[in-house]
This record gives sequence, structure tokens and C-alpha cells, in this order.
Amino acid sequence: MGNSIPDNDESRELGDWQPRNLPAAYKVGVPPRKNFVNEFTERVKETLFPDDPLRAYKNQPKSKQFLLGLQYFFPILSWVREYNLKKFKGDLIAGFTIASLCIPQDIGYAKLANLDPQYGLYSSFVPPLVYAVMGSSRDIAIGPVAVVSLLLGNLLQDEFDPKLNKEEYHRLAVTATFFAGVTQAALGFFRLGFIVDFLSHAAIVGFMAGAAITIALQQLKGFLGIQNFTKETDIVSVMKSVWGSVHHGWNWETIVIGTSFLAFLLVAKYIGKKNRNLFWVPAIAPLISVILSTFFVYITRADKHGVQIVRKIKKGINPSSVHELYFSGPNLGKGIKIGVVSGMIALTEATAIGRTFADMKGYQLDGNKEMVALGTMNIVGSMTSCFVATGSFSRSAVNYMAGCQTAVSNIVMSIIVLLTLELITPLFKYTPNAILASIIINAVIGLIDYDAAILIWKIDKFDFIACMGAFFGVVFDSVEIGLLIAVSISFAKILLQVTRPRTALLGNLPRTTIYRNIQQYPEATKVPGVIIVRVDSAIYFSNSNYVKERILRWLREEEEKQKEDSLPRINFLIVEMSPVTDIDTSGIHAFEDLYKNLSKREIQLLLANPGPIVMEKLQASEFTELIGHDKIFLTVGEAAMSCAPKVIEEV
Amino acid sequence: MGNSIPDNDESRELGDWQPRNLPAAYKVGVPPRKNFVNEFTERVKETLFPDDPLRAYKNQPKSKQFLLGLQYFFPILSWVREYNLKKFKGDLIAGFTIASLCIPQDIGYAKLANLDPQYGLYSSFVPPLVYAVMGSSRDIAIGPVAVVSLLLGNLLQDEFDPKLNKEEYHRLAVTATFFAGVTQAALGFFRLGFIVDFLSHAAIVGFMAGAAITIALQQLKGFLGIQNFTKETDIVSVMKSVWGSVHHGWNWETIVIGTSFLAFLLVAKYIGKKNRNLFWVPAIAPLISVILSTFFVYITRADKHGVQIVRKIKKGINPSSVHELYFSGPNLGKGIKIGVVSGMIALTEATAIGRTFADMKGYQLDGNKEMVALGTMNIVGSMTSCFVATGSFSRSAVNYMAGCQTAVSNIVMSIIVLLTLELITPLFKYTPNAILASIIINAVIGLIDYDAAILIWKIDKFDFIACMGAFFGVVFDSVEIGLLIAVSISFAKILLQVTRPRTALLGNLPRTTIYRNIQQYPEATKVPGVIIVRVDSAIYFSNSNYVKERILRWLREEEEKQKEDSLPRINFLIVEMSPVTDIDTSGIHAFEDLYKNLSKREIQLLLANPGPIVMEKLQASEFTELIGHDKIFLTVGEAAMSCAPKVIEEV
Repeated sequence: MGNSIPDNDESRELGDWQPRNLPAAYKVGVPPRKNFVNEFTERVKETLFPDDPLRAYKNQPKSKQFLLGLQYFFPILSWVREYNLKKFKGDLIAGFTIASLCIPQDIGYAKLANLDPQYGLYSSFVPPLVYAVMGSSRDIAIGPVAVVSLLLGNLLQDEFDPKLNKEEYHRLAVTATFFAGVTQAALGFFRLGFIVDFLSHAAIVGFMAGAAITIALQQLKGFLGIQNFTKETDIVSVMKSVWGSVHHGWNWETIVIGTSFLAFLLVAKYIGKKNRNLFWVPAIAPLISVILSTFFVYITRADKHGVQIVRKIKKGINPSSVHELYFSGPNLGKGIKIGVVSGMIALTEATAIGRTFADMKGYQLDGNKEMVALGTMNIVGSMTSCFVATGSFSRSAVNYMAGCQTAVSNIVMSIIVLLTLELITPLFKYTPNAILASIIINAVIGLIDYDAAILIWKIDKFDFIACMGAFFGVVFDSVEIGLLIAVSISFAKILLQVTRPRTALLGNLPRTTIYRNIQQYPEATKVPGVIIVRVDSAIYFSNSNYVKERILRWLREEEEKQKEDSLPRINFLIVEMSPVTDIDTSGIHAFEDLYKNLSKREIQLLLANPGPIVMEKLQASEFTELIGHDKIFLTVGEAAMSCAPKVIEEV
Repeated sequence: MGNSIPDNDESRELGDWQPRNLPAAYKVGVPPRKNFVNEFTERVKETLFPDDPLRAYKNQPKSKQFLLGLQYFFPILSWVREYNLKKFKGDLIAGFTIASLCIPQDIGYAKLANLDPQYGLYSSFVPPLVYAVMGSSRDIAIGPVAVVSLLLGNLLQDEFDPKLNKEEYHRLAVTATFFAGVTQAALGFFRLGFIVDFLSHAAIVGFMAGAAITIALQQLKGFLGIQNFTKETDIVSVMKSVWGSVHHGWNWETIVIGTSFLAFLLVAKYIGKKNRNLFWVPAIAPLISVILSTFFVYITRADKHGVQIVRKIKKGINPSSVHELYFSGPNLGKGIKIGVVSGMIALTEATAIGRTFADMKGYQLDGNKEMVALGTMNIVGSMTSCFVATGSFSRSAVNYMAGCQTAVSNIVMSIIVLLTLELITPLFKYTPNAILASIIINAVIGLIDYDAAILIWKIDKFDFIACMGAFFGVVFDSVEIGLLIAVSISFAKILLQVTRPRTALLGNLPRTTIYRNIQQYPEATKVPGVIIVRVDSAIYFSNSNYVKERILRWLREEEEKQKEDSLPRINFLIVEMSPVTDIDTSGIHAFEDLYKNLSKREIQLLLANPGPIVMEKLQASEFTELIGHDKIFLTVGEAAMSCAPKVIEEV
């Protein structure tokens, strides 16, 4: 693509080889060869340190470097000095808001993980403090989240029964949390954060929506006041046990309380949506409904009429759980397995949130550093009776809207949680489970992102299939299966991408020297006797043969057309190499084979605009000698003109 | 890249939107939207039927279609009619040559697989016949090959001891062969042939060389006449057992015979290399040395002096082995596992050979069809006491040089093998194992491809690492480990490719409107106030965030430079999209984030030459509306000019 006919005559002298009958302004450049070490270090740097984290350290005194190093691991040091009352005001309000939102959610999410309510609160106390010191996102709100809690609960109860083996169950929970933290910190430390990118957006959307449905279904237990409820999470068995207990087991008082407050929450949410300034309405609605319903149950003693209540939340702050961690025996393996899985999922959620808000406020975020922070936070958490905590979509959004300035809002939140644990937990005694159910249902509804799904459908049908696969996997089988489907589909897509790159036939845009895809530009006209193919990907072993075959097929198809319409015989095949960013030995072999094959048919092979790396490798392999230097052009325009000399007169 | 300033004035009228201050010849085209079904079928077709095998069937009468269908599965039908005496002459000579080469090799390779010598001959009788009828390569020579035999032997002896459980061992061997065939046929039938492309050329080179060394080392047993030899294949333990038996166990008569004939073979090979017309010298040398040495041993009765001999080859053609196949029990699973692995390796070898010779003679080869042929051939083989057969590098080359015309040369070969089995096997009784060892050593030396390794080193250091990894894996541990390393490195490379695409900063080539990578073209000059980045890959979830971050980093670096040299502030960021062949939802989100981020800094985002699919998706996601249609240009040239209106006057 492009015009290299110089705009004045001087350049006719330039360039030491000349495609015949054509003044070439520039020859295809070859970059200076790098030696192995440079090449290697460069590539490693690009892979593991794309964000160049050591930039700031360059030519700095040791002392400064040390300080920067500290600041790198404890970002609080870098912003605490500029911290002021104005900022604090914002953080204070935000902190209070997310606290009021998280306290009831925590209690509910603890239930999702089959743990006692207080563990939810524990996990909103210690981890946020750690994150505030180490994390670099200013908007993320830390604590337990629905999906991870559910996933953790499911994985754990496959190993131990949360009722019968309460102790082992809990020990495995903290062990898993520990290894979740280790996984996260390790990924970050070894700069392997990009691994979370292997889960495609589409798959995540589907997975989240599925998880939301599953969680909502689980809440029917508390919402309808059903006593004996299935352990399965798939929609079929849940529905069975719901209908099974329709005549005996549904408790109408519970249902009344649940529905009325759910309605209240939904209205509050609606108000918040309508008027962004009233964001605090949906934010505090849950706490209000908890207070009201608790008070209501207390005076009516509705619990005597079968309305299930929280009954007991242990008072006081997190007890140590260091001694509970499994570091040996079969449970170690289980803990690692569960930890890795839930840790990764927690990461994907946190990373997504971090990036979103960073871009909204226009600041950079070091993904790997974040992972170290999140990891450390969970490791510390696992030693203080917390289960896996991460960034929460809903609460982070509220945090952002409430005008948080720094991670201090997390500190405020955790202090409030601390006070709650120390002082008012007993008051939760009469809180009806139905309310927690309503709150969770109301919360997880937000995870179902219709618009995203619709957009995915619009943009890429295959992404949509991935999305639905993950969704139905979760809903009809289990979170694990859904996750498995999501991951495998994502990988399948990657492999497909590298095995079947796109190719296009190029034509000339009349009255220009531009050559474009004839499918995209109907006005583009083919050059008689010449076929121009663009290969749209690096050529590696995984696709080299396909590329070769595909080019030959383009040729065959054109030749058939040409026979039908008795056009001039095709004598030249130009491969537009601009998009071919790299080539490996297999790729070069494929080109050699292509060249042999074409030579047999007396068709000339020409290359247009090979990139630096490609050019370097074509020379190293002496392919340039094979086809001849004068067969490699700066632009398709030149190449095409060299095929049909008279074109020049026209120009 | 390129120039869209029309070469005459008419085109100024063209185009319905105009980037400001600039006559645009063409607007960026958007292809007609395809509906889901079309899109889907098209993509599936491109993935599974890239070679468009049904082309010939289009608008043909049913009867013709049926005939074509038959010819598709039995290519013999398509060429047998044009077959003539001249062709037969070529095939006859070639057939005799490869037969003389394969008979001694077969006996040796059977030993590699820990099977009795006759099984090697069996495998050179039935499979070639089947292939001749179904295969479409004209040059490939079918039979047992060294690497596959070794691999099969290793995998089998992990399950059963070839001495103690002779019967189970043999039953498992044919079972594995059966499932190797099933795997191959299935891959071909479901058009999944491209899976073999996931093993990179570099990895194969390393693996083959390693296997060659391992095989050669194994031959020291027969070559030195050592009685008790290690079962391990790694160089360390082999060397141990070689030196361990240096004083007692080495048999000098054996060594004399072995070395002298190895010398003879190497000389023959050298002659063949020097003078291509004498290709038959190395081809028949093995058979000659077998005859000579056998005769020699017979008259000197050297076997009485500890020279080990073949002793006994069962006379007669392949007995049926249908009843021996395991179709139940634990051995079924083992058989499948071993079959799949060895079947895949056999495929990679056969496919490589097929492609090479097809391109040398300039004919097309349907990889998937080939696999069906190879698969069927091994399935039939497994029922007639054969073990895995495939195309042999060395024998195919000889076949080609001997002037084979069609698969008939395979038929000739297998007839000769048949006669051998029926008549002269007893004569092999006195053949010393040392000869077979020499023949195998001489054969596998050819698998060590120094030149390829050197080329790989020259072209791509990372491919070289993969190559060495596979090589050392095989030599120092085992074939399986080497294979595992090869595969995993290959996959790692694919994943790296899609996570870390290359990006480049573009500059203008003076006196043209071409924009090129400034690293490749030092003369290219940056446009003041504008930064032009080219993204060299489709943007998918796996790299979308990296791409975004990387673009922002280019910007940051440029801004730092600009501050230092007090250049004009950067107001525009142009992303050259030509190489971006596709984009998914994650990619679009990344661009939205990029746009938000840039807007915060009051930098304008411009796109140049997005391809058809990308353009379609940008519109579907309304990203075009977000940044504005007039920010999307046909070429970088236009985009750059729109940033600095005065540029136009200059042109």
C-alpha cells in the first residue's frame, strides 16, 4: 500500500538497487542485527516488564532508589505526604457509604461460603487495611465478593461437609485463602500478571451472569424460609427442592418480609440509577432494611413463627488462625488446588475493576504490583480468620461515586467494621435471613450485564457462544464447570487465531497508488496478470502451511476466473507483507516451498514491504538471495508497477 | 501507510465525508454485514476446509460426483487410467531400490520396538499396499521408521517387559498400532489435520536429532556385542553400561565386523552425496553388507565366538492379529494412550515428507486426506501383525531420486518384501546383529540436521532454545520427556505471540507520503506534535490490555523526550490499524479506555486504515461515533496531514 514515487527528482539518485523501469526512493530497510543477549533481554523485558517499572530508578542516587523501592511496594508513602483534609472529607464519606453497604453483604457472603457470619466481617476488616498500605488503586473497595465466596463454598464443600466437619472445613477455608494469596503474590512478583488476560471478556461476562443466577437461586432458601435445601447449585436440582417444599416448608411471614424489603431495595436502586446524586440511597438502603427488619422481628418475635434469623454473630475482632493452616497432609494439596482457582478468579475481578477506574480517572496502574498487594492482603487475611477478599464491583462503584480520593476510604470502612465487630454484632441477633437473601439478590442482579452480552452478540458471534457456554455451564451444572468451559473456549479462540490468520486479495484504488482489500473497497480494481495477496499475521509454524496453501488457493481461484473470462495469464504473485510482523523457520520454509511451487508454474514471486524482523530473517536465511533482492519492494505500488512497466507512463 | 492524495483533481469530488482541510479520495470502506449463519459457516469452512476440497463437486451430475467421491478416497482410481509402461519402469526401479533399503532396516527397527525381526517386514508388506490405494503422495515410501519404533518401544516397555510378558507386550503393540491408526484417520476425517502444525519445526529438528543420538547409542549393544545392556535410553545410563562392560562383554569379532561394514556404508553414502547419479550405491549398500556379512559369519561360524546373530526369522506372511487387540480392560486405556502419542508423531513425519515432495514436484496434497489414508493403513496393519508404519524420510528421498512416478513403487516394494518373507527369511539366520546396528546407525545419522539447527540459530534464537530443549530432553532423559518439552515450548511460543504483539513508532519518509517504522528506516522523521503507533496484530482479550498499556508507554516516552528537547506538545496520537486484522470486545473496551485516558490529557485519538472486520466491529460497538467518523482515515498520510493542516501546502 502506498506511493513511493518521490515527489521530486532528487530522490531518483537514492537507493542502491532499483526495481526495473522504476525510480525507487527508498530500499526496504534492514535494522542493525542485535546479538543474542540483547535480543533475549529485550524480548524478556517486553514480555515481563512491558510497563518498564524500573524507569523511575534510572540514574538516581542509591538513597533515592531505596526510597522509590519502598514507595513501589508501599504506595501509601508516595501519596500520604500530599494528603490533606479536603481529600480526607471525600474518603470519610466514601468510607461510611461502602461500610454501610458491606456490613450486611459480608454477613450474606459468609453464608455463601458456608461460614459463620462474623467471618464475612473479619474479611472486611484486615484485608482492606493491608491493601490501603500496599495497593495503588484509589477507587477499589476491598472485601468478600459474591462470586468468589460462592466458588470457594462450592469447592470447599466438595472436600468437607460444612456442618459435620465444621472445624476441618474452616481450616481448609483459611488454608485455601492462604494459597490464593500466595498464588496472587507469586503471579505479581514474577510479572506473570498477564495470565489473567487469558480469560476472555466474553467468557467472564457469561460466567458472572451465570454465577449471579446461581447465587440468587441459592437465596431462595432464606427468601422462602425453606428448611432442608439441596447442596447442588444447578438450576434443576434447586428448582426441584424449591417446588418440593412448596406445600410444607415455605414460610409466608418470611416471604412477606423478604419480598417487601427486596421491593424497597430495588426501588432504592432505581432511584440511584435515575439520579446520580442520589447514589447514596441504594448504598445505605441495605443497612436501613437490616435495621428496620431486625427491629420489626424483635418486637413481633416473628422468629417464633418460623422466620429464620441470624441468631448469633461472635463478638470481637479477628482471632488468629495461623495454627489452623494446613501445611502438610492430604488437605495441603486440596487447599492449594482450591486456593489457586479462587485466587485467580479473585484476581480477574480485582484487575478488571482496577483498570476500569484507573482509566476513568486517567492514572496508570501496575497490574503486577496490584497482584502483589492483593496477594499479601489475602496471606495476612488467612492468618486472621479471613476468607478470600478482593475488589467488589458494586462497592467500588459506590466508593467512586461517593468521591473517594485515596485508599483511606478502605481504612475508614475497616474501622467501622471493627467497631461493628466490637460493639453491635449482638444487635444482629434478630436480623431475619430473608433480608440478607434480599440484599444478596439485589446485589448480584447487578452482575448480569445484558448490555455487554448484546454488544458481544453484535460484535462477535463466537465471543457470544463463549459467553453463553460459560453462562449455561454455571447455571445448569456448577461454577467449576462454567469456569472450565470459559477457560477452554478462551484458549480454543487463541489457538484458532494463530492457526487460521486472515488473508485478503488487494486491488488498486483508481487514480491512486493505494492498494486495498477488494472486499472492503469494491471500487478497488485488480491489476491484470498480477495477483496481490496480503497475509494478515505473523507467519509461524502454527500457520505457515495454511498461509502457503491459502495463497496457492487464491492463485488457483484467480486462474480459474481468468480462464473463464479469458483475461491475461497471471505471471506475478505479490505478497503484501506489511502485516507480517514476524516469521520463523517454518514460515521461511513455507515461503521457499511457495517459491518452488510458483517457479514450476513460471509465476514470479514478489514481496512488498516486509517489516524489520522479517527482513532480517529473510536475509539470514538467504531467502532474499533465492528470490532476488530486486523482487522485494517498499510498497505494493512499486511491486505492481515493476510487473507492468507501462503503468509508469500512465502515472 | 500510503498516499491518498489523488493524482488528478476529479477525485476531489469523491468521498462523502472529508477530513478537515484535506481532499480525501476514498473513505474507509465497510463491507456489507454478514448474518450469523453466513459468518459462522464461512469461518468454519475457513478453519476446517481451507483447501476447499468440495471445489470439484460443484455443479456436477450426481453420477460424476459419486465417481469423484470414490476418487477422493481412492486416488488410485484417478491416476490408474493414465498409467503406462514408462511410468511403471520408473516405479519398478524405485520399488526395487527402496525394498533393498527397507528389508535390513525393517529388521533393525523391529528390534528398536522390542519386537521379533519378522514384524518389521510385516509392517513393510501390508501398509504400503493400503497406502498405494488410498494415499495421494507419489513419492512417500511407507514402512516402519526409526523414531516411531523407538518411541513405541519405550512407551510399551513402560507397561510390559518385552522378554517376560512377550505375549501381552505384543498384544499391546498391535492395540497401540490400531489406535494410532484410529487417531490419524479421525484427525483427517474431522479435518483437524492442522493439529500436527502445533509442533514447531524447531522443536521437531531438536527432537529428531535427539532421537537419532538415542537410537545410535542403543545400537552400541549390538555393535559392541554387549550381552546385558541397560533398558534406559538416556545417554548417562547407556554410557555407564557400555563402560561397565568394557573388560568383559565387548566382543572384538563383533566390533571388527560392525566397524568395517559401518565404514563401508558411510563411504557408500559419501559417494551418493558426491554424485547424485550414484544415489543407488548408498541405497543398496545395506543389503550388500547384510549378504556379505551373513555369508562371512556362515563360513567362519563366527557366532561360535560370541558374534550375536539374528538366529531366527519366522517364515511366511503376516498372520492375523485381530484376536490379539485389547478392546477392554486396563490395557485398552494404555493402548489408546500409546497409540495417540505414536500416531501423532508418525503423522508429523509423514505430513512433513508429503509436503516437501509435493512442493518439489509442484502438486497439491490434501493433508487431511493423507491422514485418513495413513490411519486406515495402520488400522489394517494392526489386524495383520504390523506395528506403526509411516513415511520414512530416507527411503522417500531414495524413492524420489530413483525416479518413482506413482505409489506403485510402494506396491513393488511390498511384493518384494512378500517374497522375502515367503522364501529367503531363513537365510537371515546368520546375519550378525552388528550389521543391523551399523545399518541403523548409518540411517539415523541422517536425522541429525546440523544445517537446519544452524539456520534456526541464525533466524530465531528462541526457536533455537526450543530446538535444544527438545534435543537435550531426549538425549538426557527420554523420548517422552523430549517430546513433552518440544510440545510445551511450542505452545508457550504461540501464547507469547498472542499476548505480546509487536508495536512500532512510525515516521515519514522525506519527500513521500509513506510512513514507516523508524527503527527500520532511520531516514524516517517524526511529525512534530504527532505520535504515530502501529499495532502489529489482531487485538484480542489476550493482548488488548498490553496493547493499550504499550501505546500509552510510547506516548509517555515521547512526552519525556519532548520535555527534554522542548519540542511542540503532543496533541495527536495516530494508531495505524492496517495490521490489526481483527478485534474483539475486550479489544474495543481497551480502545475505549485508551480514548478516555487520552481525552483526560487532551490528546486526540486518530485511526488509520482499519480493515473490514475491524471497521465493522468498531461501528457495531459505536466506537466510531465515540471518537467521530472524521477521526478515521484511509491512510496514515491523511491522518497526519489532518493534524497539521499546513503540511498540505508543502506537498
